[in-house]
Amino acid sequence: MNTALVIEDVRLTPILVSDPPLLNTQGVHQPYTPRLIVEVVTRDGTTGVGETYGDGAYLEPARSLAEVLPGRAVTDLNGLFALADEVCEGSHAAADDRVDAGGLRGVRNAGKIRLSVVSAFEVACLDALGKAHGLPVHALLGGKVRDSVEYSAYLFYRWAAHPGPGEADDWGAALDPAGVVAQARRFADTYGFGSFKLKGGVFEPDREVAAVRALAEAFPGRPLRLDPNGAWSVPTSLYVAEQLKDVLEYLEDPTSGTEGMAAVAAGTDVPLATNMCVTTLAEVPEAFDRDAVQIVLSDHHYWGGLHRTRELAGICRTFGVGLSMHSNTHLGISLAAMTHVAATVPDLAYACDSHYPWQSEDVITERHTFTGGRLTVSDAPGLGVDLDRDRLTALHRRWLEDDGTYRERDDAAAMRRADPDWTTPAVPRW
Amino acid sequence: MNTALVIEDVRLTPILVSDPPLLNTQGVHQPYTPRLIVEVVTRDGTTGVGETYGDGAYLEPARSLAEVLPGRAVTDLNGLFALADEVCEGSHAAADDRVDAGGLRGVRNAGKIRLSVVSAFEVACLDALGKAHGLPVHALLGGKVRDSVEYSAYLFYRWAAHPGPGEADDWGAALDPAGVVAQARRFADTYGFGSFKLKGGVFEPDREVAAVRALAEAFPGRPLRLDPNGAWSVPTSLYVAEQLKDVLEYLEDPTSGTEGMAAVAAGTDVPLATNMCVTTLAEVPEAFDRDAVQIVLSDHHYWGGLHRTRELAGICRTFGVGLSMHSNTHLGISLAAMTHVAATVPDLAYACDSHYPWQSEDVITERHTFTGGRLTVSDAPGLGVDLDRDRLTALHRRWLEDDGTYRERDDAAAMRRADPDWTTPAVPRW
Repeated sequence: MNTALVIEDVRLTPILVSDPPLLNTQGVHQPYTPRLIVEVVTRDGTTGVGETYGDGAYLEPARSLAEVLPGRAVTDLNGLFALADEVCEGSHAAADDRVDAGGLRGVRNAGKIRLSVVSAFEVACLDALGKAHGLPVHALLGGKVRDSVEYSAYLFYRWAAHPGPGEADDWGAALDPAGVVAQARRFADTYGFGSFKLKGGVFEPDREVAAVRALAEAFPGRPLRLDPNGAWSVPTSLYVAEQLKDVLEYLEDPTSGTEGMAAVAAGTDVPLATNMCVTTLAEVPEAFDRDAVQIVLSDHHYWGGLHRTRELAGICRTFGVGLSMHSNTHLGISLAAMTHVAATVPDLAYACDSHYPWQSEDVITERHTFTGGRLTVSDAPGLGVDLDRDRLTALHRRWLEDDGTYRERDDAAAMRRADPDWTTPAVPRW
Repeated sequence: MNTALVIEDVRLTPILVSDPPLLNTQGVHQPYTPRLIVEVVTRDGTTGVGETYGDGAYLEPARSLAEVLPGRAVTDLNGLFALADEVCEGSHAAADDRVDAGGLRGVRNAGKIRLSVVSAFEVACLDALGKAHGLPVHALLGGKVRDSVEYSAYLFYRWAAHPGPGEADDWGAALDPAGVVAQARRFADTYGFGSFKLKGGVFEPDREVAAVRALAEAFPGRPLRLDPNGAWSVPTSLYVAEQLKDVLEYLEDPTSGTEGMAAVAAGTDVPLATNMCVTTLAEVPEAFDRDAVQIVLSDHHYWGGLHRTRELAGICRTFGVGLSMHSNTHLGISLAAMTHVAATVPDLAYACDSHYPWQSEDVITERHTFTGGRLTVSDAPGLGVDLDRDRLTALHRRWLEDDGTYRERDDAAAMRRADPDWTTPAVPRW
């Protein structure tokens, strides 16, 4: 084995990054969100970086995996899955029973958490391999088929500020159609986004229908999406689909569960997208068989990395299901990874989602810039990003100094700071 | 772009390789079979090699693709498919209507032929990329998960010699159970193969059942397979399955078409494998939906290369369908490619097929050697094989000097040299 490719050291750095008060059906984003930064250092000193969720349930398996990686090669990616299963089994079985805080990530069990952990190591290894050989990550995935990747504006109902501590921004509140349109306008003006997704499930459906109609008036002909994170019943989903069928590119997770999604899909011509109904390979067969989803929103964290995301793309292509990309709060490392893999997938017919414009903090030296709603695919070695160690240290310090309030993302707990009576709403909420 | 990775030149060398008189349901292997050797040379002089079918229908699109490759990067693999569609469209549309000579490769249309052509270029590019960077091909596919790949003995009914010209060998005839067992014994003794596949569909089913039972007696407990290339009716298939259910690892393509395969699968517990019913992504959904096949025998030529083979593996894993590997007549370049990709697929539960032991000629300097029925996965750069240019030249000369008799594989025409009245049997033959 080429010793330059052998992993000498693995560094895990949990951090807290500021997050604006973005609303969803389960509550509100906390002022700080945990992320985990993974660094893989090879014997010749090349460092590759990856990023994933930073909640405790992810840190435990990440530590187990990090312990056994030294001595292995950064090219040894297919072997990471069995290795993760081996080192994590038993000690983290309890995670199987944990409930996702907010439920916004779809099914959450030990296996899926492990895949999200593996994804960060896989990306870090690809970054290191690419850097060591002067090859961009996309070239390690069979090469880009486009020079830039289109993203959509990710609109949120939001407060002007967190009710307690938290970083300030100048976006102001967006709680009605005018606020949503103003937010979309700023996104379009600043970044050139040409399609718009509104995170819904926050207010009663008619109010959200009105917001989407206002967007349609403000941006005629532009692709629009609405995502209530499974908050609606089947009849409510069908009602909204009917109201918006002339302007929606797709409706995302209108209702919870494959059965409900299939019922909605059977009753409307509006395509249904998902990042909740189909988030693991195990969920694919039934959902595809029942035609419950027409577009899978991939997420390389969920699916176990960039190679697995490409496999998912092949599965979708085979079954005539569309593919695009989902996003939770993430930083520039993951955005680079998303862009590289998206560049390699031929049939990416929809602009990808990204929270990135909401993130004022990052751990890379040069932030990504959307132009014309697109990111240029980097041809620099690896991911094409450099770690800003000072920023990493500062955000890690925030994590270290946290008293436990923010180390687990919990949108319902964050909401209780404004509304002490808030509990996670049962679905269907409407 | 790293200029060392830019393609400077592409060389296509059609060859004729000797093939023994192996029988199948459509006829007999010709004494010489066409193959196409693809060389991709980069600006820094690195040469990568690939191999695919060499019939005329493959040469035309290969030439079209070869013309447009110079100037592109060897990392640009995902882009090969659209490029091939673009340069081949129109000029080769007629291939859509061609019927496969022998019908043994499943559906044959322009799209599938194009994928087989792309596969040779993809493999050649991976070989060049690996050589340029000192990385084995498996490392470019996410890394091996095993150090060796198991192959099965590929048994054929055969004549001692071709009726007309052709190279001689010392295997003798195998036309009855004793002959088949003797052939299996020699394969086991020489190469250590532990599982056995008999190419069937040659004689009436009871005679082939007797041969498999003789194998079971000679090699108790060893995995056995029988492959009549779709020659049987559904009732005949079910009859054979019942006769052999205690000894068959799987039955391969007992009958033709998804509907027939589904009917057989519904009537037996013997798993059905295929390299005829599912040979393209388009054939996957219906076959999987109807549970028509339990094991897909991949073939990186059919599926468009090594990345696509890995996608197929992901599809099979997702739907709980087994995966192994099919083989037509091929040389050491393709065997290297098969071994590299097989090494990267976690869930390869069955020994792969290979015609390779039947091939006395090759175009590489050092032939592969099966030990304990396995091939060691090479960690040398690229595929780990070197082209023997003298042999290549000699086999190309044979192709050049051929009067057209052997440039298209046609097992029925070969059979007519022994039996002038032979016509391709209609299916079901029994």
